Amino acid sequence: MADFFDVVLGQRAYRQLKPDPVPDDVVMRILEAATHAPSEENHQPWEFIVVRDEATRQAIGRVTQEVWEAFGREYARGQLTPKFFEAVDQWATGGLAAAPVHVVICGNTERTPEEQLPSSIFPAVQNLLLAACALGLGSLMSTLSVTNRAAFSPVLGLPAHIVPLALVPLGWPERALGPARREPVEEHLHRDRWGGR
Amino acid sequence: MADFFDVVLGQRAYRQLKPDPVPDDVVMRILEAATHAPSEENHQPWEFIVVRDEATRQAIGRVTQEVWEAFGREYARGQLTPKFFEAVDQWATGGLAAAPVHVVICGNTERTPEEQLPSSIFPAVQNLLLAACALGLGSLMSTLSVTNRAAFSPVLGLPAHIVPLALVPLGWPERALGPARREPVEEHLHRDRWGGR
Repeated sequence: MADFFDVVLGQRAYRQLKPDPVPDDVVMRILEAATHAPSEENHQPWEFIVVRDEATRQAIGRVTQEVWEAFGREYARGQLTPKFFEAVDQWATGGLAAAPVHVVICGNTERTPEEQLPSSIFPAVQNLLLAACALGLGSLMSTLSVTNRAAFSPVLGLPAHIVPLALVPLGWPERALGPARREPVEEHLHRDRWGGR
Repeated sequence: MADFFDVVLGQRAYRQLKPDPVPDDVVMRILEAATHAPSEENHQPWEFIVVRDEATRQAIGRVTQEVWEAFGREYARGQLTPKFFEAVDQWATGGLAAAPVHVVICGNTERTPEEQLPSSIFPAVQNLLLAACALGLGSLMSTLSVTNRAAFSPVLGLPAHIVPLALVPLGWPERALGPARREPVEEHLHRDRWGGR
């Protein structure tokens, strides 16, 4: 049993994962949690591709690395602390492919129009991340590879009506990490109207 | 203490809420959970407007009702079961305004580009919904009113760089409801590639 607030306040990105396999019943429990997220009119437009095949994980890694090198890396270098940049760079150029399970979360445009998919899909992704944390797995959400849909979709044989929205690698953490750093709520809080205190 | 899986599997929309006030420390605990969601490069682009003022809640209710009557109602009538339609119709035409607290979740385009806001905001909304559930509150996520940004933003005095993305009414449930109905994971699961079993 995991306390809800311990999980929600402790959930964070893990980029360094062990290659050890993740049992299928653990993955299924995580996906069941994902399907309990809300969606517009309960249309449940999510589709999950669970990738264990190594060649496919490496192909996903290559698409990610290409987007990273073409668009992400130089932008990130100026945005992130050197330590954070180094961790992301190592992840995008090899760490991701080494994670034993990739879960690709897609939206089905035959259930929900494409422009309304994000509000029906990202809550399910968050449930997935939280459930992984509750079960001791490391994970993170990445939208890097799916921004190049033309390169990404053929890797998984996704038909045209299926939109890949996020990638979540899963695995057992190399080591436990402390909680993520967040700004205090008060800095993001407004009472009754913008700027209200 | 609330068990994580009890919360995540039990979380569901509550449309009928008591008018009783919700203590501020409860709201703050829910918002703290929201701020522990991931965001792109940890930019934390969320802004929360907590509305208790009755006139403002009624103004939000009017924008919602106008969008519902102009675009949502006839579409939904053909999509939903009669009972579900009736519940949503009552909510959109009065129930929402009566909820004692409205939380409006916005994205800050000075932190994250607008097209990348959904993947950084909807996970926080889901944490908010789950934390409300863990503390016994009823809630739901609605994107109805914010689709008419031109009408919605002036109600809260939102500046141009702040994008409203979701509205979550909070309150104590009129009565407890069972878990939401969801399709089995297996119907949304693919192994290694689309259609893989």
